[in-house]
Amino acid sequence: MADEVVLLDFWASVYGMRTRIALEEKKVKYDYREQDLVNKSALLLEMNPVHKKIPVLVHNGKPVCESLIQIEYIDETWPGENPLLPSDPYERAQAKFWADFIDKKMSVTAKRVWATKSEEQEASKELIEILKTLESELGEKHYFGGKTFGFVDIALIGFYSWFGVYEKYGNVSIESECSKLIAWAKRCLQRDSVTKTLPELEKLIALISERRKSLGLE
Amino acid sequence: MADEVVLLDFWASVYGMRTRIALEEKKVKYDYREQDLVNKSALLLEMNPVHKKIPVLVHNGKPVCESLIQIEYIDETWPGENPLLPSDPYERAQAKFWADFIDKKMSVTAKRVWATKSEEQEASKELIEILKTLESELGEKHYFGGKTFGFVDIALIGFYSWFGVYEKYGNVSIESECSKLIAWAKRCLQRDSVTKTLPELEKLIALISERRKSLGLE
Repeated sequence: MADEVVLLDFWASVYGMRTRIALEEKKVKYDYREQDLVNKSALLLEMNPVHKKIPVLVHNGKPVCESLIQIEYIDETWPGENPLLPSDPYERAQAKFWADFIDKKMSVTAKRVWATKSEEQEASKELIEILKTLESELGEKHYFGGKTFGFVDIALIGFYSWFGVYEKYGNVSIESECSKLIAWAKRCLQRDSVTKTLPELEKLIALISERRKSLGLE
Repeated sequence: MADEVVLLDFWASVYGMRTRIALEEKKVKYDYREQDLVNKSALLLEMNPVHKKIPVLVHNGKPVCESLIQIEYIDETWPGENPLLPSDPYERAQAKFWADFIDKKMSVTAKRVWATKSEEQEASKELIEILKTLESELGEKHYFGGKTFGFVDIALIGFYSWFGVYEKYGNVSIESECSKLIAWAKRCLQRDSVTKTLPELEKLIALISERRKSLGLE
């Protein structure tokens, strides 16, 4: 049986970007289905009844939820090309630790950056702290896992497409504060899987400008 | 070289309990070091500089942080006895999804149950909803993974030792609301790894009573 792979996703989601990049790295063909997050589809509610969130990877009719779990699933299901997680148990644990750190820290803080008034700079400072912690973990390595693009890179790179949003509304220059991280992001952008996936900043800013209006911030 | 395994932990931690149970299941000998969470030890700060939290598993001098990552690491490092995660990628993804659900939902809500005034019952209702979702996933199975005790059971069973705390301060009967989950917990308690690990309710209540006093709730 040929694999039937469907991705329920939303173009601006940093989580969805992870799964799209992982599928591209593995050269898995899939059917992308953009979701309306205001009026959720019957399919989304059926496939992720617990959280009702995208992305959902549907493989031969069976759903896998949560983007980091999806990357691992993709790596285990299509193990041949471009391994995404290290094979050594200790290195795997470290990769999972940093991806978990990104999940625990980035989204909440990043949302506070663009969803609050620009005079409130606390969130921007915290965001820079988080990015500096990640930069310190990266060190002099080419990618987070060393020489090859992998799990932690995939977990983080989607946020890079949002950096311009954080800079605009958070009144901060990530480029000047975290130049090594920017250099890492540019290395990631040499990969087709990443350039294909990351959205344009203008589109994101248009989206966020609308959200801010609906929050009474513009 | 013989394995040197050290666990930095705190007796009442549901996260630490996970790692202790996983080590017991694998019959790994380890050096347990109780931590003072108010005055954190130099060793804890050195081994988990990012989050500064227990549990930390230190294997041959190298730290592994985050309890779910520790269980996976233990399963991969000592694969022989009692596999903790399923070998099938889809089942693995499902197990990780439910453990992640427990992490995202249980602690925050459970703390609201005991750390607020007893007249505020909203948290107790939410806790029952979460437990009913888990009960529904358990269904008629013996354990969450089917016939054998594993990852999701380990992720959840520590909370069972706290049920009496939630019942006392949340003014709720988990036993009458979630009888199948209680039956599952009693099955888990037939395992040495679990009985050895779960603390006595009286000790937990004494601890929480002190915390509530310091929060001005008693």
